[in-house]
Amino acid sequence: MQRIAPIKLAARVTGLFQTVHPDSFETTAVPALTLGFGGIGGDRHGGFTRRTGGREPWYPRGTEIRNERQVSLLSPADLARIASGMDVAEIRPEWIGGNLLIEGIADFTLLPARSCLFFAGGVTIRIDGLNVPCRFSGRAVASHYPDREGLDLAFVKAAKDLRGLVGWVEKPGVIAEGEALEVRVPEQWIYRA
Amino acid sequence: MQRIAPIKLAARVTGLFQTVHPDSFETTAVPALTLGFGGIGGDRHGGFTRRTGGREPWYPRGTEIRNERQVSLLSPADLARIASGMDVAEIRPEWIGGNLLIEGIADFTLLPARSCLFFAGGVTIRIDGLNVPCRFSGRAVASHYPDREGLDLAFVKAAKDLRGLVGWVEKPGVIAEGEALEVRVPEQWIYRA
Repeated sequence: MQRIAPIKLAARVTGLFQTVHPDSFETTAVPALTLGFGGIGGDRHGGFTRRTGGREPWYPRGTEIRNERQVSLLSPADLARIASGMDVAEIRPEWIGGNLLIEGIADFTLLPARSCLFFAGGVTIRIDGLNVPCRFSGRAVASHYPDREGLDLAFVKAAKDLRGLVGWVEKPGVIAEGEALEVRVPEQWIYRA
Repeated sequence: MQRIAPIKLAARVTGLFQTVHPDSFETTAVPALTLGFGGIGGDRHGGFTRRTGGREPWYPRGTEIRNERQVSLLSPADLARIASGMDVAEIRPEWIGGNLLIEGIADFTLLPARSCLFFAGGVTIRIDGLNVPCRFSGRAVASHYPDREGLDLAFVKAAKDLRGLVGWVEKPGVIAEGEALEVRVPEQWIYRA
């Protein structure tokens, strides 16, 4: 069995965002994010637990489960590739509920589960895994290009493997814009039954 | 890039254990485990958060982090291979703080991070990943074979990739001995920087 040794990568925070109103899906740029064990205070996706939705069709809608999706992490390069694939000028992180824009990691969205992001200021975010693009985000993107039709579904297709990661707060604190971070990718292998 | 499609596997609970006294590392067989969002009630490894130790040398010892290690899951086949490698009669799950004995999954310890265990009774455990054998567990095993020397280090070596998994409670409830479960292994790939 092939084993890939752990990897350390250097990256930088180039944008921070949070939902200002809990009933709004879109996020707004902020100079710093304050993170607790429950995620971003006041953010729509905060909380120790969350309610399930369409992503978890095996649960009745609204089932309370532990929240492994406290923060949404995006990469400028991946967003640019989505925009290119949809033939639009840009995809703003705010439109799809992004919380952190992380620059400097190739194929950011493909970082494996259990990767850890150690921020210079002391916060640690543990990666649950890649975020599967949904039509809800697609509609949010589409609303910014009212002259184009079908962008909701185009986003779902174009954003596959590019829609960033979700994760949870392992160690609370404050992350500031421009902050450096180290990504630690754990040992990797392929499990075969 | 090679992508391995998600896999579903059938398994069964053949043992349940918890620490009876929070200051004891060893677990005791119980007919059922009651799991909350904080893990096993009263168990040494329960809690929404935990204090770091030797596994996390990058943190000052005792740092409070989110608890991704609420439960320890072991496989009878993997334990038998450890025992064989150490030339001892058996390794009991209780000795190394195991909480669930899961039968029927080949190479159980190598199940990837983000795998989900859906128990027939409604509990879901999300896998953080494999548990790295430590000398602390090795000493616990060694104490059961007082006539043999060096078993603490022998365990650390023999238990690599066989010491089971750690995970956390996604959906609370009760797990009973003999209960069936389905393991859902997510899509897999190798990330290369």
